[in-house]
Amino acid sequence: METSVNNNYEHRLSYLYQAIESGSLFRIQRMLNGLKPGEIAHLIEASPPQQRKIVWELVEQENEGAVLVELGDGIRASLMEEMDVEELTEAVQGLSVDDMADFLQTLPQTVIHQTLSSMDRQDRERVQEVLGFDEDTAGGLMDTQTVTVKPDVTVDVVLRYLRRQKDLPSHLDRLFVVNNDNIYQGSISLVTLLTHQPDEAVQDIMDENSTVIHAATPSQQIALIFEDRDLVSAPVVEEETQRLLGRITIDDVVDVIREEAEQSVKSMAGLNEDDELFAPVLTSARRRAVWLGTNLLTAFMAAWVIGQFETTINSAIALAALMGVIPSMGGIAGSQTLTLVVRGIALGQVGKTNTRSLFLKEIMVGLLNGLVWALVVFAVSAFVFKEPSIGIVVAIAMLLNLIAAPIAGVTLPVALKKMGIDPALAGSVLLTTVTDIIGYAAVLGLAALSLPYWKSLFG
Amino acid sequence: METSVNNNYEHRLSYLYQAIESGSLFRIQRMLNGLKPGEIAHLIEASPPQQRKIVWELVEQENEGAVLVELGDGIRASLMEEMDVEELTEAVQGLSVDDMADFLQTLPQTVIHQTLSSMDRQDRERVQEVLGFDEDTAGGLMDTQTVTVKPDVTVDVVLRYLRRQKDLPSHLDRLFVVNNDNIYQGSISLVTLLTHQPDEAVQDIMDENSTVIHAATPSQQIALIFEDRDLVSAPVVEEETQRLLGRITIDDVVDVIREEAEQSVKSMAGLNEDDELFAPVLTSARRRAVWLGTNLLTAFMAAWVIGQFETTINSAIALAALMGVIPSMGGIAGSQTLTLVVRGIALGQVGKTNTRSLFLKEIMVGLLNGLVWALVVFAVSAFVFKEPSIGIVVAIAMLLNLIAAPIAGVTLPVALKKMGIDPALAGSVLLTTVTDIIGYAAVLGLAALSLPYWKSLFG
Repeated sequence: METSVNNNYEHRLSYLYQAIESGSLFRIQRMLNGLKPGEIAHLIEASPPQQRKIVWELVEQENEGAVLVELGDGIRASLMEEMDVEELTEAVQGLSVDDMADFLQTLPQTVIHQTLSSMDRQDRERVQEVLGFDEDTAGGLMDTQTVTVKPDVTVDVVLRYLRRQKDLPSHLDRLFVVNNDNIYQGSISLVTLLTHQPDEAVQDIMDENSTVIHAATPSQQIALIFEDRDLVSAPVVEEETQRLLGRITIDDVVDVIREEAEQSVKSMAGLNEDDELFAPVLTSARRRAVWLGTNLLTAFMAAWVIGQFETTINSAIALAALMGVIPSMGGIAGSQTLTLVVRGIALGQVGKTNTRSLFLKEIMVGLLNGLVWALVVFAVSAFVFKEPSIGIVVAIAMLLNLIAAPIAGVTLPVALKKMGIDPALAGSVLLTTVTDIIGYAAVLGLAALSLPYWKSLFG
Repeated sequence: METSVNNNYEHRLSYLYQAIESGSLFRIQRMLNGLKPGEIAHLIEASPPQQRKIVWELVEQENEGAVLVELGDGIRASLMEEMDVEELTEAVQGLSVDDMADFLQTLPQTVIHQTLSSMDRQDRERVQEVLGFDEDTAGGLMDTQTVTVKPDVTVDVVLRYLRRQKDLPSHLDRLFVVNNDNIYQGSISLVTLLTHQPDEAVQDIMDENSTVIHAATPSQQIALIFEDRDLVSAPVVEEETQRLLGRITIDDVVDVIREEAEQSVKSMAGLNEDDELFAPVLTSARRRAVWLGTNLLTAFMAAWVIGQFETTINSAIALAALMGVIPSMGGIAGSQTLTLVVRGIALGQVGKTNTRSLFLKEIMVGLLNGLVWALVVFAVSAFVFKEPSIGIVVAIAMLLNLIAAPIAGVTLPVALKKMGIDPALAGSVLLTTVTDIIGYAAVLGLAALSLPYWKSLFG
């Protein structure tokens, strides 16, 4: 029987890292064999690049496709880059039609071609049907493998038919009733089948009012329908004809809900949906640079507004106008890191086993962004505001704060969690305090200490 | 058969408001009768207070409990305040044990007492068992109504037993196999029952490795387990004895995932989990004041840091130190509104039908918070920093920006959505720009125009 240890994600992670450190690949392999694809994907997402690679190489070939499907888009793409056409074609085999369709869309043309031509005609047509729909609609989400019965048969016939099936689809809670033209008539749940007499006809006991989803319904709306109606599966039909096309199951809907929510959390913090805990430093730095750059632009606009009132502030105007940029850039960088770490904690992907790796990665990202934006802010100060001395001060402060901010973004939520305080709420407040104070102290401290010297150099 | 119109949330909302405006209560009632409790809850959450009240009064009494269960905590509490003990007791009847337990914990003692004493002994004991667990654990989430079979019976006996049942629990995808002491042995899915021969024994075909959840498992971890293993239902057992206590179903897990994600989005923006689109103005204003107050405190700490470098900035120090407070407060207030509106759009709760109500509400909240924080910032400027003139300028700018910010928070995402741009991502950038520019322009513009006058008054 399942033991409690296997249900604890943090415990599983630390077991994995111990095994990797002691070089016991056999123990890792045995552990991976006992996990579902979704759980393996979860472990991979929670691992720094090196461990990630080891785990991925130990995944059995027949499971590779199923694990890839469960991974976030960013990680999946990076793992797939390392695979050749043969390996990819192999990985796609054995996936269900809806998973395969999702997956094929991200593959190179040669792989799509090879995969499709290696399938039997019925499967190929099914995959092509799903590929014809937008992936964010019911048509793109659905599995075309359905179990259908005719309205005039009896319960007994249905039961005998089911008993002959070897391979029923997952999450089968209801059969769909269709006429000879495959037009949807209603559905009959397994519970209804089990609780009615063998001689009753399907059409007398089927549910004609069960929820039907049109092929073009957007996935977000499907999620709301499943949520509000507590569905496990629902038929997908062509809108005009009511022809049955496939079915959608709750497991795919749960993925839609989770992805949509994650994307929303991330984009509010200016993160891209592909941003993940252990994305490569360069990729992370480049993605976050977009948001930092936009913020710098708005800060310069604010500085311009401040500049319009020169007589009011009357002196040291450039410093006063530019110093606000430092804490605000730190706030942005820090809250992006904070968002990833807080979500990682919520999803069981951040624990003491990987905090250090995360820490190092974030320092690198901070350093890269710090260098870039220090240069930019220096250039603008020196050439637009004609204040090279202040530019140097502001640039050094920028670098310091952009390194300090992600460090605070990792350590604050981890520390708060240890103290039993909700890192999502308290983290943002504390982070802003830290980035504001370090930011202002850096820019003004440097100004006090070194501005006269720079002025003596540049005049 | 279900028509497409009923699946479109925005269409449903505008139909509702038209019916309310034309006073056609009968049409509303007919519409509500065709909806599931979750859908009615969704409509109520998307409605401003007045419409909310009308819809709630038209919900049939027998559905009231089920709708209350589906509502967010904040709205539920406000609706329940208007109900007397009899109505509440009535509403609780007919709920499943897990829903009832969730619900009872939020009710006054007299209602709990009356409800429990009006139930038969078996149900009462079940509810009390669930009430004994923390509501955020498997024990608190579970339904105690389970369908169990003994390991030594045959498929045929199980099928005949099921056929005699009138009232099987929802989401029944598997039966639990227990011995005579109610110790969990394994599970058998309906599909297995349907595809095996009648004379096979349960113990030969049951799944002994299916996932088991311990009563103390936190709900967030349950969500991960259901997600990673694609479960529809799972048994809850006592950890030491493996005694079967109840079952958890995917519909409750979906609620956990959604709530957890919503709470995370909200708390990153400093919103309380009870904050909702149409919460009463005073409640919203008070809740958001906490975050604004904290931000002001950190801003004053930053101002103190700036003050340490007085010789560097050398003049107009107080204005330079305090002016940064205005855009940052506007940023906080605006992004809170933005977060609510962006999530409302994502969940189909914000459309052109209710934008105006939302707009008015947010202006009121902004006005209230603006007045409070204008006073505070004036008091601190005048009495701590000894700058009453600058205090007046900063206070007026604060009021203006705290009214402008929520207006931007509503209009930006709605406008972006109309233009087909993701309001979550673009909204945050634009909002910061708006609140920064209005903030700095207000504080410096007012200073330029009126500071000499205030100085002549206060010296």
